[in-house]
Amino acid sequence: MKRIAGILITSLAASMLVAGGASANGNKQPKLSDKEMEKASEIYFDRCSGCHGVLRGGATGPDIRPEKTLKKSLAKLEKILYDGTEGGMPGWGKDGLISKADIKLLAKYVQVDAPVPPAWDMKKTMASWEVLVPVDKRPTKAPNTNWQNYFGVVQRDAGLVTIIDGDTKEKIVTLPSGFATHILRTSSSGRYLYAIGRDGKASMMDMWASPPNLVAKVRTGIDARSIDTSKYKGFEDKYVVVGNYWPSHYVILKGDTLEPIKIVGTSGYTHDTNEYRLESRVASIVASHHAPEWVLNLKEMGTVLLVDYSKVENGTVTETMINAERALHDGGWDSTKRYFLVAANMRDTISVIDTVDRKLVKNIKVGTKPHPGRGANWVDPEFGNVWATVHLGEGLVSIISTDPSKKHAWTVVREWELDGNSLFIKTHDKSKYVYCDNTINKNKSNVLTIFEKNKPNAAPKEITFKKKVVHMEFNKDGDEVWVSLWDAKGEIVVIDDKTLEIKKRITGLDSPTGKFNIYNTTHDVY
Amino acid sequence: MKRIAGILITSLAASMLVAGGASANGNKQPKLSDKEMEKASEIYFDRCSGCHGVLRGGATGPDIRPEKTLKKSLAKLEKILYDGTEGGMPGWGKDGLISKADIKLLAKYVQVDAPVPPAWDMKKTMASWEVLVPVDKRPTKAPNTNWQNYFGVVQRDAGLVTIIDGDTKEKIVTLPSGFATHILRTSSSGRYLYAIGRDGKASMMDMWASPPNLVAKVRTGIDARSIDTSKYKGFEDKYVVVGNYWPSHYVILKGDTLEPIKIVGTSGYTHDTNEYRLESRVASIVASHHAPEWVLNLKEMGTVLLVDYSKVENGTVTETMINAERALHDGGWDSTKRYFLVAANMRDTISVIDTVDRKLVKNIKVGTKPHPGRGANWVDPEFGNVWATVHLGEGLVSIISTDPSKKHAWTVVREWELDGNSLFIKTHDKSKYVYCDNTINKNKSNVLTIFEKNKPNAAPKEITFKKKVVHMEFNKDGDEVWVSLWDAKGEIVVIDDKTLEIKKRITGLDSPTGKFNIYNTTHDVY
Repeated sequence: MKRIAGILITSLAASMLVAGGASANGNKQPKLSDKEMEKASEIYFDRCSGCHGVLRGGATGPDIRPEKTLKKSLAKLEKILYDGTEGGMPGWGKDGLISKADIKLLAKYVQVDAPVPPAWDMKKTMASWEVLVPVDKRPTKAPNTNWQNYFGVVQRDAGLVTIIDGDTKEKIVTLPSGFATHILRTSSSGRYLYAIGRDGKASMMDMWASPPNLVAKVRTGIDARSIDTSKYKGFEDKYVVVGNYWPSHYVILKGDTLEPIKIVGTSGYTHDTNEYRLESRVASIVASHHAPEWVLNLKEMGTVLLVDYSKVENGTVTETMINAERALHDGGWDSTKRYFLVAANMRDTISVIDTVDRKLVKNIKVGTKPHPGRGANWVDPEFGNVWATVHLGEGLVSIISTDPSKKHAWTVVREWELDGNSLFIKTHDKSKYVYCDNTINKNKSNVLTIFEKNKPNAAPKEITFKKKVVHMEFNKDGDEVWVSLWDAKGEIVVIDDKTLEIKKRITGLDSPTGKFNIYNTTHDVY
Repeated sequence: MKRIAGILITSLAASMLVAGGASANGNKQPKLSDKEMEKASEIYFDRCSGCHGVLRGGATGPDIRPEKTLKKSLAKLEKILYDGTEGGMPGWGKDGLISKADIKLLAKYVQVDAPVPPAWDMKKTMASWEVLVPVDKRPTKAPNTNWQNYFGVVQRDAGLVTIIDGDTKEKIVTLPSGFATHILRTSSSGRYLYAIGRDGKASMMDMWASPPNLVAKVRTGIDARSIDTSKYKGFEDKYVVVGNYWPSHYVILKGDTLEPIKIVGTSGYTHDTNEYRLESRVASIVASHHAPEWVLNLKEMGTVLLVDYSKVENGTVTETMINAERALHDGGWDSTKRYFLVAANMRDTISVIDTVDRKLVKNIKVGTKPHPGRGANWVDPEFGNVWATVHLGEGLVSIISTDPSKKHAWTVVREWELDGNSLFIKTHDKSKYVYCDNTINKNKSNVLTIFEKNKPNAAPKEITFKKKVVHMEFNKDGDEVWVSLWDAKGEIVVIDDKTLEIKKRITGLDSPTGKFNIYNTTHDVY
């Protein structure tokens, strides 16, 4: 009996939760006071957890659990934190973002076992749920406006979403959303716009109300990034799903009220080495048009889940687990909406999932740390249908053939150079251009780079602004590109897609980031 | 940012892992030395964890996490441990199984946070994997014996399996299996016999070898209870699945070598209240004959998983989650092998799963703590096809109609009284009797109770032995019942099913428990 029970007696460090644990060969874990732990956790959550994970198992950044960090001296850890790394970690000290004293604290903090964040279960979720406008108090028909050309504009640091009329360019209303609002998505009809905050707060806005209003909200966890809706025939506007970082789970909600229906955990084993990850983050979600399913991308596991929601009201959910690649992040559909292309950013890979045959088509090597957002689809004059991504780690547009009938299908058929790292790429069927921002290229963050689809070897055009440019979105007709100038006194600049001239500036926006045109978001136009 | 990070700073007690945590209103957690923790963990694992769980969230027994236990005084906890409860907990002190000093220790132990057992991932699993006889060194045809009438007999406390020839009643060979071997299952052809130990060790024996031999073994976790094989057409003898208690996961292995293929975690949310359970034990497994699927029963979650294994070699597994009832334990097929009946023992419920329409048919209330093993199927003279269970908590056979065409389908159509609690029930198509043991009825543990199918209102017959009787199994032809007399100098008694007379005694067995006839196990005859 000893044999079994002997295994059970274990310090938390050696347990499956903080798997990894302290190395016997390394340095001793430092002691931190409760106050130090609190302060360090706060900085860590704010600056480090996005890439390394709250339990520090790594995904976009490397594994920095005590098992690893205890092999380094505190001085070495401080140096890394101060200067950054060639792998892409910012120089937190050098860039003036973290003080020297706090860097000393963080170096110690990453040598002690990570505190495990608390649960967020149905009880807490239900307690947070509020229907602000009941269904029977909402309009029964669409307004007499071109509401499908409304834009939801995220003012990230303010936790606000401003609805702007795409025709008049007037701000219609500004509504509260969660802290550091991450993305917006629409219901299948486009009527409802859903926001997800980094704090796990989901907000639902009704585009048929005049002005659009907040009709429901719910908090589904402590840390979240993704939200989407049921788009398959027969399930339009029925369900919403939120994908969480912590706790690692997804929550299915009713589409008209955000009433929570079911929570499904995502903790599990990495797809390749079958190691356990309690922290198994839902990085992104898209709604299938071919089945009543969502495609969920699990970062740590490298697994793509196809989640069948058609019987969720009986409590039944069916998950198909497809092995893809570690560090899954964001992605989008090809032009047929059959193939889903998702970036495994630490692995310099785009994984292609066939949602009809329900399998991995291919892991395609691209540049360093691809970051497509949802990517961009167009017809290349030589290679036909293509989809493209930019990269966090190098100035490169990787262009992939998405035509399965071609012999070059699912290979990088073309590469465009950028002068540095980028966040987003965007185009529209009606546009002859492909737009890339340079947000994280320190020398050119205020420049928009514009390639021409039919002149793929020509040097790109550039538009230079006075501020950092981030994220592009087209209007419904596909003849305007909206870009954000990102600071506390930010604005949106509307560019004429034909002439590349500035048509309009929409000012008075606090840190505008993502912009989501109702029609294009509903129909996955990108 | 404080708002978010504030939530992150948390003691382990309040974290999602040991969800529940210490009550602010209750007593203070006592302090135990490392040595005391080790000793208490050992006793707890041995005596308590089966019902309460290693993390103590409860399933067959109640939730006894510190949140609950700190509301009680140490004196009250000691009294419960000593005397037992009416709910079915043994009087550990009263029965002389745990000393007074150890009871004092255990009372304190359950007031402190449960130590979390370690991980057991692919690396450890692979390191434990051994092929003792390679596939190309094994016989290519079946022996000239009636090998389908072999029995695998578990000698539980010895960690051994003895293969006995059902025709000659001779012991052929005794092979090592895991600690406290729990059950045996066969491959679809019957050729291979698989054992699973409570310590997570799976062993594979070849019935075609003369004598049968151990051909492969692997350890898939620290604590396990269930094993089964792929039985669907086209997948015969291809895969094995082991269901674990800790870590809470299942492991898919190759059927011919036990080579590990994939580990899938089962931690998640309870089906009804959506609370998180890191400890989410796989209680039992059966292989579907209608699809390339296993039916896995998750104890804490109350969820039945249909696991599609047809694409596992591409890394793809599909899980359909069906909400059933908490505290799922063991169960078996109805006579058509379409409906799976599983006991939710703490909820006094049998959950019926339709594996063709892939849904819960009904939760049927039965007696106190049903414990069917795999149950027993026969044709009742009045009600037609029925399936029955005995109970851990009362002397009762609950007989359920399994004929969906009848208006009384899925109701308890008949109850037979027993004199006390029971572990197992068994019959065979060719038998006119239904056999029940009384293993946990202190006054009659040495008695076998025998009901007659066609005289359902008649008083049962009894056979009295000199020792505790446990578990019954038929031979291939269905004309003999084998029962175990369970102690260190145990034996198997072979009873003539027609005359109820003893035909043979097979002696010299250490703590014989389960017996598994190759043919009946392969074909789910019960």
